[in-house]
Amino acid sequence: MNPAIEASLTCWHEIIASGDTRRLRSLLAPDCVFRSPVAYHPYHGAERTERVLATAASVFADFRYHRQFVSGNDVGLEFSARVGSTELKGIDLIHFDDTGLITEFEVMVRPATGLQALGQEMARRLAQKA
Amino acid sequence: MNPAIEASLTCWHEIIASGDTRRLRSLLAPDCVFRSPVAYHPYHGAERTERVLATAASVFADFRYHRQFVSGNDVGLEFSARVGSTELKGIDLIHFDDTGLITEFEVMVRPATGLQALGQEMARRLAQKA
Repeated sequence: MNPAIEASLTCWHEIIASGDTRRLRSLLAPDCVFRSPVAYHPYHGAERTERVLATAASVFADFRYHRQFVSGNDVGLEFSARVGSTELKGIDLIHFDDTGLITEFEVMVRPATGLQALGQEMARRLAQKA
Repeated sequence: MNPAIEASLTCWHEIIASGDTRRLRSLLAPDCVFRSPVAYHPYHGAERTERVLATAASVFADFRYHRQFVSGNDVGLEFSARVGSTELKGIDLIHFDDTGLITEFEVMVRPATGLQALGQEMARRLAQKA
């Protein structure tokens, strides 16, 4: 793996483990795209991507990463978590550029009950911040 | 990658490309577990896994694989497809044993509209076969 991407991944895991999302923005390319597990249309730009990722980090409880899949500059990070009392599994599909910046971040979640709980809680918190 | 797993992956792609699911069963370990994008509880056994996978293959239109992620004996296959007029993205997370048999098959799908369309169509077709 490209050392710049490896360093970004290490930073990402530190952010998630600590819950301190202040360094998040430094990992995102200005034109970063976020593809939500819930919504069809992507979010464009580092600012909106940062807001969604930071909100998601605050919504999940018992968040843990499991398998890490690699494909060139793309990484898949499998996770499990709870939203309230609802358990879910998911995967972050992250595309890095050669300098280690995140240019695309896509999330998928299962099962349907988990996706629904996540969607409702994300909508509630993002509305508060808007 | 383990050559047995590579051979199974080639066979899997041939099955999906052709739509001919008769060889599917030969890829599944007897105690194979299937984790649905919709339902919380897994399906146990090769017979039920085969039925769900074959049904899913018949539900998707314009099915295409994209990135292939690898992690030892685990493979992630990103895909896009339609269910009726509803577009979706998804990933197959497949665990192979050392002989190339599939022991776990987990699927995640986004966005919510795609998951809902898939769940409804899968339920309808599986009920017809039951």
